[in-house]
Amino acid sequence: MEYSEFRPLDDKALVDYIKVTPSLLSIVGNNFADLTVKEVGDGNLNFVYIVVGSSGSFVIKQALPYLRCIETWPMTKERAYFETLALKEHGRLCPEHVPQVYHFDRTMSLIGMRYLEPPHIILRKGLIAGIEYPLLAEHISDYMSKTLFYTSLLYHTTLEHKGLVAEFCGNVELCRLTEQVVLSDPYKVSQFNRWTSPYLDSDAKAIREDNTLKLEVAGLKSMFCERAQALIHGDLHTGSIMVTLESTQVIDPEFAFYGPMGFDVGAFIGNLILAFFAQNGHANEQNDRQIYKKWILRTIEETWNLFHTKFIGLWDKHKDGPGEAYLPEIYNKLELQQLVQRKYMSDLFHDTLGFGAAKMIRRIVGVAHVEDFESITDPSKRADCERRALEVAKKLLKERRKFQTISEVVLVILEHQA
Amino acid sequence: MEYSEFRPLDDKALVDYIKVTPSLLSIVGNNFADLTVKEVGDGNLNFVYIVVGSSGSFVIKQALPYLRCIETWPMTKERAYFETLALKEHGRLCPEHVPQVYHFDRTMSLIGMRYLEPPHIILRKGLIAGIEYPLLAEHISDYMSKTLFYTSLLYHTTLEHKGLVAEFCGNVELCRLTEQVVLSDPYKVSQFNRWTSPYLDSDAKAIREDNTLKLEVAGLKSMFCERAQALIHGDLHTGSIMVTLESTQVIDPEFAFYGPMGFDVGAFIGNLILAFFAQNGHANEQNDRQIYKKWILRTIEETWNLFHTKFIGLWDKHKDGPGEAYLPEIYNKLELQQLVQRKYMSDLFHDTLGFGAAKMIRRIVGVAHVEDFESITDPSKRADCERRALEVAKKLLKERRKFQTISEVVLVILEHQA
Repeated sequence: MEYSEFRPLDDKALVDYIKVTPSLLSIVGNNFADLTVKEVGDGNLNFVYIVVGSSGSFVIKQALPYLRCIETWPMTKERAYFETLALKEHGRLCPEHVPQVYHFDRTMSLIGMRYLEPPHIILRKGLIAGIEYPLLAEHISDYMSKTLFYTSLLYHTTLEHKGLVAEFCGNVELCRLTEQVVLSDPYKVSQFNRWTSPYLDSDAKAIREDNTLKLEVAGLKSMFCERAQALIHGDLHTGSIMVTLESTQVIDPEFAFYGPMGFDVGAFIGNLILAFFAQNGHANEQNDRQIYKKWILRTIEETWNLFHTKFIGLWDKHKDGPGEAYLPEIYNKLELQQLVQRKYMSDLFHDTLGFGAAKMIRRIVGVAHVEDFESITDPSKRADCERRALEVAKKLLKERRKFQTISEVVLVILEHQA
Repeated sequence: MEYSEFRPLDDKALVDYIKVTPSLLSIVGNNFADLTVKEVGDGNLNFVYIVVGSSGSFVIKQALPYLRCIETWPMTKERAYFETLALKEHGRLCPEHVPQVYHFDRTMSLIGMRYLEPPHIILRKGLIAGIEYPLLAEHISDYMSKTLFYTSLLYHTTLEHKGLVAEFCGNVELCRLTEQVVLSDPYKVSQFNRWTSPYLDSDAKAIREDNTLKLEVAGLKSMFCERAQALIHGDLHTGSIMVTLESTQVIDPEFAFYGPMGFDVGAFIGNLILAFFAQNGHANEQNDRQIYKKWILRTIEETWNLFHTKFIGLWDKHKDGPGEAYLPEIYNKLELQQLVQRKYMSDLFHDTLGFGAAKMIRRIVGVAHVEDFESITDPSKRADCERRALEVAKKLLKERRKFQTISEVVLVILEHQA
């Protein structure tokens, strides 16, 4: 039997689906008495089932034709197709940090992929719990450097690049969602915006009236819409990463498309900064979180610095490779190569700070907030944390071109802590 | 009868083709005794026939699967498809300055379009002859402002933009040609490069060894490959424009794709600067060309200033329109609107100078030269003209961000004239 048209699955329908799908059946085995199915989706978008059978397990993710969190907000099911494309491509480039795809059904908008077994948890929850992940910077810099470098014109020929750019242009609806909720709504009156009111009322208003901020965001939005620099994850916040102390796995690339690299790097670093400023709200008499805050800052520094080193390393390794942006006959002399690399990484750093800051702002005065802050129950304490994060974000967004190193960013964060 | 597979036409085969093609037949009428066919293609790429019949006329342009000027250089015939798309889209936006398309045959890579009857001549030939075109700046600024504004995110929704971007990604082979001959070859040793030797030997070498220049060209190449800002003509030099004293018609958009606007504006202005520096080579005792040179400089100034005014005019007119780059709820306050417009136009000006300069350099030390210089028979005189243009181009490329107005560019040109 084939599923010839889309229908949303429930636990029971999912079991029927598995029974007729060899690629899934072969994983869980034939003993359906033992099969367990559990819906665990906690995101804004999809249904997610964990399926465990007698011989193995997987996750089933199904996209529905609307946002799960706002059911009146329609959203293309085709995002599952682009998520699969991105999982496969990023998985090929960095298999250590991307879950394997076992099955994809375009009609059903359904992906079967590796189940990231316990103790894997969402990184954001780990950050709220105050858990240090000693390999996080190492792993995420690995993921970002490989996925971004190998899908850019530093490695691609322009021929393959344009073909892939064209394909991912199809994921336009998800791009529009980002444009709206990250780069537009926070800067205007919108029914979807919310913030810790009344404490942040004047802060939200100040953002809507800050001409410099709005000028800078316009530039970032143009870059987001126009610049096909690499295949980016598109939503690389700490809720899109699952971790244990030894493992780091990047999930949920349904927003993937060819866009500016700084959007990914910035999303990750921006969300770490949010996590930093949320710590005061999670401090208590047993744990003042001071040591943990230092670990977060160290992770921010290490993430950028390792990313920088690894990205340049890949560039050096492949400088005679297929990439057409910097042809070896023109750019392989040492002095010039260092000059173009410095310029490239400096621009990427400023893009990172700009997009990272925009992602921070939207999480405080836009539609979708983060559990880091939301789980702080005292609203005045939450507002204090959020306001400090907001001030850092505004400074990073407006003055990003003045920053040369990540240490300077850390200094600004330190200046704004309590 | 249909033509089910591609074959190149000659005069006789073309007549047979017309006889079975109603959209063409209806224009020239049924009297084939009177029909005249003349091959006139003088470009690097295609065959072009003028067909005149008893009741009307048209031009037939057929793309062949190689470059006409270098037959060993293969080149997709599909360029005719993208040329047709661009002619139709730009023609819809600016019918006064784009010839009408009567017929397109994808299998045959063949376009039937309006014949631009005498006294229309290629603008470059008019510039060499020293003819003033009083409406040129007015017309070309009209064409550029309309085609670029209406195909950008200042007017497009991101939904329609991404769809069109994806379609034009298919024109990748022509983009690659530009990347190679404009933005790469002049900066390295290439079998295709040539220059007025031995006079410019050291100048060509200096370009290949100029790290700052190569750093800047790398940035422009990235922008050309990555930034889908608007549907650009892609080859808007003075050989792609036909003129009379009253008419300005833009032809040959086979390089069209979604790219940076500055590439078009820069191509036009850069080629006017080349024309300016070629004038000394065309001066003689009857005509020292001093008055004509002043007209060229005035046209350069007027082109940018009129383009600027008209582009901003369209932006103001459509600020509440469908364009999603600057949403009215965020950007419609006067002070902020002026701020974002100033930033946008300043960036576009610098892109224009950068790409314009790159187009100048490639015409002096790259594969394809311009008749403006080539028609100067005395090589030492030609080299002197070319070297002055080259010096201006290098300055514009390297220091473009220091320029705020087109008058400052004209001053640099004046400083470098004999």
